[in-house]
Amino acid sequence: VPRKGAQLYEGKAKKVFATDRPDAYIVEYKDDATAFNGEKRGTIPGKGVVNNRMSNFFFRLLAQHGVANHFLAELSEREALVCAVRILPLEVVVRNLAAGSMAKRLGLPEGQALAQPVVEFYYKDDRLGDPWVNEDHIRALGWADAAQLAHIRATALRVNEVLAAFLAPRGVRLVDFKLEFGETPAGDLLLADEISPDTCRFWDAATGERLDKDRFRRDLGGVEAAYAEMLRRVLGEGEV
Amino acid sequence: VPRKGAQLYEGKAKKVFATDRPDAYIVEYKDDATAFNGEKRGTIPGKGVVNNRMSNFFFRLLAQHGVANHFLAELSEREALVCAVRILPLEVVVRNLAAGSMAKRLGLPEGQALAQPVVEFYYKDDRLGDPWVNEDHIRALGWADAAQLAHIRATALRVNEVLAAFLAPRGVRLVDFKLEFGETPAGDLLLADEISPDTCRFWDAATGERLDKDRFRRDLGGVEAAYAEMLRRVLGEGEV
Ligand SMILES: Nc1ncnc2c1ncn2[C@@H]1O[C@H](COP(=O)(O)OP(=O)(O)O)[C@@H](O)[C@H]1O
Ligand SMILES: Nc1ncnc2c1ncn2[C@@H]1O[C@H](COP(=O)(O)OP(=O)(O)O)[C@@H](O)[C@H]1O
Ligand SMILES: [Mg+2]
Ligand SMILES: [Mg+2]
Repeated sequence: VPRKGAQLYEGKAKKVFATDRPDAYIVEYKDDATAFNGEKRGTIPGKGVVNNRMSNFFFRLLAQHGVANHFLAELSEREALVCAVRILPLEVVVRNLAAGSMAKRLGLPEGQALAQPVVEFYYKDDRLGDPWVNEDHIRALGWADAAQLAHIRATALRVNEVLAAFLAPRGVRLVDFKLEFGETPAGDLLLADEISPDTCRFWDAATGERLDKDRFRRDLGGVEAAYAEMLRRVLGEGEV
Repeated sequence: VPRKGAQLYEGKAKKVFATDRPDAYIVEYKDDATAFNGEKRGTIPGKGVVNNRMSNFFFRLLAQHGVANHFLAELSEREALVCAVRILPLEVVVRNLAAGSMAKRLGLPEGQALAQPVVEFYYKDDRLGDPWVNEDHIRALGWADAAQLAHIRATALRVNEVLAAFLAPRGVRLVDFKLEFGETPAGDLLLADEISPDTCRFWDAATGERLDKDRFRRDLGGVEAAYAEMLRRVLGEGEV
């Protein structure tokens, strides 16, 4: 078992710790919830446990489908061992239906169908409010090169296929999600960060009910219950 | 000489008229100036003449370099005959240096160098404030198909090369510009609209002085003189 070392940084939803292995970090998931670039703050009891267990499950599933990612081991209810990477300053969003900021910006109804999945990039910078960029900005400003971008785009679309196909028989529509990628010292890109109701829009396929952080963002109530329900659907009835 | 028919629409900077040819419109350039999606309004005396003459010059130059466009003939100081097209609801921006909204959004100094030109797309809709989109949004929402997008992108980068190379020996740095494209009834895409100090950022190569609509947007003064100076540099001393 790796030994937890110094805290390296604390983000809005997780803390990252060094370990006695230079190539591995421990991520600790918190119950803190924020929205609208930190303007709205709160706590969702049990969120850290759900997000840790769900992320770890999805990272294992993705590895089985050939998607290289940072997950190494689940250490506790709230802690995972992950590969130490340098996170690229990019948020990579994949959308299957228009919702959230895209629906609002383009004047589309939430749930509007898209003829193909949409990949969006944001420059990860809280001070600037995570501004939108496209692949040209990313190359022109040196945040990733053409080969890395092609890999990121293909991986993001592959993650979409794997997760959407996994969730459909569990009655969940994968509306959209956000990914982060990191670079290992050897220069390999790994899918990193988390895949959870904080970072995905999950809609009940039958009722359209929101089973994700939109319940918190939009004050819909039943936030904890929705996170618990999503974990149940992902892990299977007996496992929670 | 074509006969001017009914006014089809009036935009912020131009009026468009039918003619006795079903495949041709007359564009009439106004002195009206607007900025920040119509929030700031004013008049720049002589602007319509400059923008008509400069656009016509650039469209002829681009045609000589193989860039198919809507220009047919200069009819008067303020009027041009153009091919009647259905304008795609897209503004296509090409940038050689960070400036304006890009510099602001990404926290970069105006004039920051870019390792490659950047192409940006906006959905042309005044009500929504011309929101940003990327090529995925455009395909997913059916505003252009993959072949049209590839053509638009390649054409925009070619326009950049031709204009930048033309302007450099005239002491002008082409910082960025906005293009519009239209579809003919036969389904061909043509570069359309205008190419003028309203739609380009022109910086004096030696002094960095702004020779474009930023003088109006930012209340820098000398707006008319800058437009006149740019026309002089484009047409050559004797021609104005
Ligand atoms: N494998 C990893 N190695 C290093 N940093 C990581 C790894 N996975 C995620 N991170 C980073 O951990 C930080 C904390 O996560 P989080 O609380 O979600 O931060 P944020 O407030 O930026 O959303 C983030 O900067 C995230 O990019
Ligand atoms: N060849 C053309 N055929 C049809 N419409 C055109 C053509 N060239 C430009 N237009 C359109 O003429 C309208 C008037 O121009 P402008 O005053 O610049 O409008 P806006 O207020 O949208 O900027 C715009 O909608 C523009 O797209
Ligand atoms: Mg985060
Ligand atoms: Mg216009």
